[in-house]
Amino acid sequence: MTATKSVFHRIQQSFSRSGHLQAIGAKLISAEPGLCEVSLPYSTCVANQQDFFHGGAIGTLADTTAGYASLTVAPEEMEVATVEYKINFLSNHKGGELRAIGKLIKGGKRVLVTTADIFHIDEHGKSTLCAVTQQTLVPISKNY
Amino acid sequence: MTATKSVFHRIQQSFSRSGHLQAIGAKLISAEPGLCEVSLPYSTCVANQQDFFHGGAIGTLADTTAGYASLTVAPEEMEVATVEYKINFLSNHKGGELRAIGKLIKGGKRVLVTTADIFHIDEHGKSTLCAVTQQTLVPISKNY
Amino acid sequence: MTATKSVFHRIQQSFSRSGHLQAIGAKLISAEPGLCEVSLPYSTCVANQQDFFHGGAIGTLADTTAGYASLTVAPEEMEVATVEYKINFLSNHKGGELRAIGKLIKGGKRVLVTTADIFHIDEHGKSTLCAVTQQTLVPISKNY
Amino acid sequence: MTATKSVFHRIQQSFSRSGHLQAIGAKLISAEPGLCEVSLPYSTCVANQQDFFHGGAIGTLADTTAGYASLTVAPEEMEVATVEYKINFLSNHKGGELRAIGKLIKGGKRVLVTTADIFHIDEHGKSTLCAVTQQTLVPISKNY
Repeated sequence: MTATKSVFHRIQQSFSRSGHLQAIGAKLISAEPGLCEVSLPYSTCVANQQDFFHGGAIGTLADTTAGYASLTVAPEEMEVATVEYKINFLSNHKGGELRAIGKLIKGGKRVLVTTADIFHIDEHGKSTLCAVTQQTLVPISKNY
Repeated sequence: MTATKSVFHRIQQSFSRSGHLQAIGAKLISAEPGLCEVSLPYSTCVANQQDFFHGGAIGTLADTTAGYASLTVAPEEMEVATVEYKINFLSNHKGGELRAIGKLIKGGKRVLVTTADIFHIDEHGKSTLCAVTQQTLVPISKNY
Repeated sequence: MTATKSVFHRIQQSFSRSGHLQAIGAKLISAEPGLCEVSLPYSTCVANQQDFFHGGAIGTLADTTAGYASLTVAPEEMEVATVEYKINFLSNHKGGELRAIGKLIKGGKRVLVTTADIFHIDEHGKSTLCAVTQQTLVPISKNY
Repeated sequence: MTATKSVFHRIQQSFSRSGHLQAIGAKLISAEPGLCEVSLPYSTCVANQQDFFHGGAIGTLADTTAGYASLTVAPEEMEVATVEYKINFLSNHKGGELRAIGKLIKGGKRVLVTTADIFHIDEHGKSTLCAVTQQTLVPISKNY
């Protein structure tokens, strides 16, 4: 198994353990050292009262994708926990899907910093940046 | 109908339209001018890979509760949209439920600022502050 | 020397070492375990292009006050370093002074979380909440 | 005068009116539509108690540079005001200078969103990303 396949496998294993990610229909697209991509198709499960993607669901997508970008470089026996994140919303969308690109900005034994850009992709494949995030994490013990 | 009942009714109407809030099992507890309280019971639907409440679900609870605290004072024909939020996590929990208290810090025609404190309540009723949030919103047209 | 006097002394010692705090005219008002208060009188040194307090100077006041609220409980041989902060501005002011109240929300050996509320006090003593902040810090070695 | 020169002139005019930016020694390097660069040389005026650049001064640099990136596209008779910003610090530095690159992420009549990357440049010209910021602004009337 190549290193990249191994990273993807590790993230997929953690990802598929999360009931929340299953409940909202998020899908891991790719993971390599310092980078991660996750998709969130539109459904009523992620819609707000105006039928747009709910800001909280977009935040979950950002938190998840940025967090997994940092997990790609954590020691094998560790998990990561979000200390905080901040998200700016740029536009509202319904239908299509969201794609989040998470990126490790700074690794470290004590504190990790990541960003995520969230794009909306409409039915015609048109991509629009719709949210940007900054996140801080710490390594924690893996309990599974 | 008293003013407070009317505010609660308005928030409940918006709340119950959101597929995402239904999907994760959030419940509106109370709403009065400038204040809102929402509950999120623990379930696999809101769990992360370590079986704790997922940070994204906690963010959704915070975004929702703080947002509705601002909607309580918005003109009747308006909704609100989150411009951004930032959340700090203080502790991890499984089981029990989360209670969020949202508060309007600054109203306004152009920009609204809110906070939310999130408490975990365990099976014995013990309450622990587990996350704090700041949020910015703008009024938008209601499309329903 | 009482414990509270000792805490104030410790914070004052760190405070007076900072050239930036001297340059902008900030003054330590009080410090006790988990709490800190700092004043920033209005001057051209802290004004922006519209003659209001500069958002950056308000951010400095918030970062400083919240940070010192956490230093009050750190081990004697340690300092603290800001990992991140986020500030919301509620209103613009010129003249008078700013007062920041910093509060430790969560202590810890690895990560500390604080908040700061910033009030403007005008020439007549009228107080207005003008900014709110959340901040994350880590303990670091003291190099002096 | 070319459009770019005109943009630079406009930003310089606002920049040089700010007593706080003068007090800390910040210098406008460049400004073009949607982009701005500002320098902050090291001095005791921007140092903290450990002789590193003070986080508040770095925040001021970020707030300023990102804000001016948005002012480059605002109508001539308007200024901008920061609604909020959030900054993550990646490393501590003393000596040399800081360079901030501000970027408009989303324009708009009601809300503008920007980012700033802050680099430390040491005496040998080595550049290190040391802070990242997200910021929200609104257009306001120009009072000068």
